[in-house]
Amino acid sequence: MRFVPDFIAQFFTSGSPLYKELQNMIGFTPGNIALYELALCHRSNNSNTTENNERLEFLGDAILGAIIGEHLFVKYPTRDEGYLTDMRTKIVNRKTLNQIALKIGLKSIMKFNEQDYYLRDSLIFGNALEALIGAIYIDKGYGRTRSFVRKRILLPFVDIELLESLEVNTKNKLIGWAGKQGRKIEFILLEEKLERGRKKFVVGVQLDDEIIASSTAGNKKEASKNAAEEAIKLLDMTL
Amino acid sequence: MRFVPDFIAQFFTSGSPLYKELQNMIGFTPGNIALYELALCHRSNNSNTTENNERLEFLGDAILGAIIGEHLFVKYPTRDEGYLTDMRTKIVNRKTLNQIALKIGLKSIMKFNEQDYYLRDSLIFGNALEALIGAIYIDKGYGRTRSFVRKRILLPFVDIELLESLEVNTKNKLIGWAGKQGRKIEFILLEEKLERGRKKFVVGVQLDDEIIASSTAGNKKEASKNAAEEAIKLLDMTL
Repeated sequence: MRFVPDFIAQFFTSGSPLYKELQNMIGFTPGNIALYELALCHRSNNSNTTENNERLEFLGDAILGAIIGEHLFVKYPTRDEGYLTDMRTKIVNRKTLNQIALKIGLKSIMKFNEQDYYLRDSLIFGNALEALIGAIYIDKGYGRTRSFVRKRILLPFVDIELLESLEVNTKNKLIGWAGKQGRKIEFILLEEKLERGRKKFVVGVQLDDEIIASSTAGNKKEASKNAAEEAIKLLDMTL
Repeated sequence: MRFVPDFIAQFFTSGSPLYKELQNMIGFTPGNIALYELALCHRSNNSNTTENNERLEFLGDAILGAIIGEHLFVKYPTRDEGYLTDMRTKIVNRKTLNQIALKIGLKSIMKFNEQDYYLRDSLIFGNALEALIGAIYIDKGYGRTRSFVRKRILLPFVDIELLESLEVNTKNKLIGWAGKQGRKIEFILLEEKLERGRKKFVVGVQLDDEIIASSTAGNKKEASKNAAEEAIKLLDMTL
C-alpha cells in the first residue's frame, strides 16, 4: 500500500461489478487493489492533488515505452533505429492510446468529474491506461505487464502494418494533392551534416518555387516523410 | 545470436583482456558475447550501416527510461509527476550519460574510427552505454539490467540531491546576475489554461520591461524554472 494514499471510500470491493470489470479488462486477479483504484482516478475527482493517477501515469508511460521498444526491436530485426523510433512514436501517441482505452471500456470504471464536458472528449482515458500499466507493473512486475500490453493492447488494437502504410502515404498524399491543384511538389535535399557523430539529412518540401517545410533526420526517407507531414499541417490538409 | 549480424573478426574472445574489462564493467559474465560486441560498435567502425550499435541504443534508451522512472517513482513517493519527469530528463540527458560512459571506461573497449577527431569529443560513448544496457536486457532480462543500472550507474554516478539543488539554483542564478548588472528580473504568471484536461501555467521572465522568455508547465515552480533556463540560454550565461 506504500504508493497509495488513503481513500475515504473504496470504490472497488472484491466481487463487485466494477471489480469484475477490471478483472476482465486486465485478464488476471489484481493483488493490491488500491493501486488500480488510484490508476483509475483522474485529478478532477479529487481536489487533493496527490490522490490521482498522474504519478502512476508517469511510471506506466516509461514501462510502456520499454515494452513497445522491445516489441519493435524483436519484430523488425533488420530495420534501423530511425524506423523503430518512428513506429514507437506512432503507437504510443496520446490519441491512439486514448482510443484504445475507450475501446477496452476504461471510461466506465474510471473516476472523474463527469459534469465536466471538456473532460468527456479529452485524452484522460489514454492517460489512465498508462497509469493502469504502471499499477500492473508495481503489482505484478515487468513480465506480467509485458504480457498485458502484448495481449490486451498490441495484438488486438495496434496494426503495425497499417501504421507503416500510412507512413508511405504521407508523401503520396502531398504529391497527389499538388497534382490535382496543378502545382508542383518536389522533395529537395537541402543539407547533409554531421551531428553528434551521426549523419543528418535535411530535406525540404518545395511547392512551386518555394520551400514551405523542412525536416532533419538520420536518413532521407525519414526526413522526407517528416517534411511532408509538416507541409500537410501547414497546408491544413487532413490525412 | 538472432539480433547480431555476423562479424568477420570477433574482437572479444573469452579470457582476453578486453573480455575481462567488459566483465569488470558489467559485473557479471556475459552470455551472448556477440551482443556486447555489437553494443560497443559505433557506425564509424563499419560502413555497413546495420552492423553498429544504433538498434541496441534504441532499445537500451527505452529500458533505461523505464528503470530510472521506477527508481524515481519509488524514491520520491510524495513528489508529483512533473518533478519525476524533470528529474528523469536530467539523469538520462546525453551529456550526463556520456560522462558516465567515459568514467566507467567504455571508450577503451569500444570500436570506432579513432582517426576521426570529431568523434573523440562527441557523445557516442553515452550512446554506446545505452546500447550496452540494451544488450544486457536481451542477454539477461529486465531484472538483471535493473541491477546493473542501479549498482553501476545510479549509485556511483548520479547524485539526485545535487541535481535537485542545481534546479533551485537556476532561478537564483538569474536573479543574482540581474542584481549585479543593476537590472530587474521578475517572474510573471502570463496565463493559466486547461490543456487535455490539465491545468497549465505559462510563466514569463521579465528583464526590466521586456518578457525575454516563457515556459509552460503543470505547475508554476516548474514553469518558472524552465523559463529561467530559457532566459539563461538566451542571455548566453553559463550555469
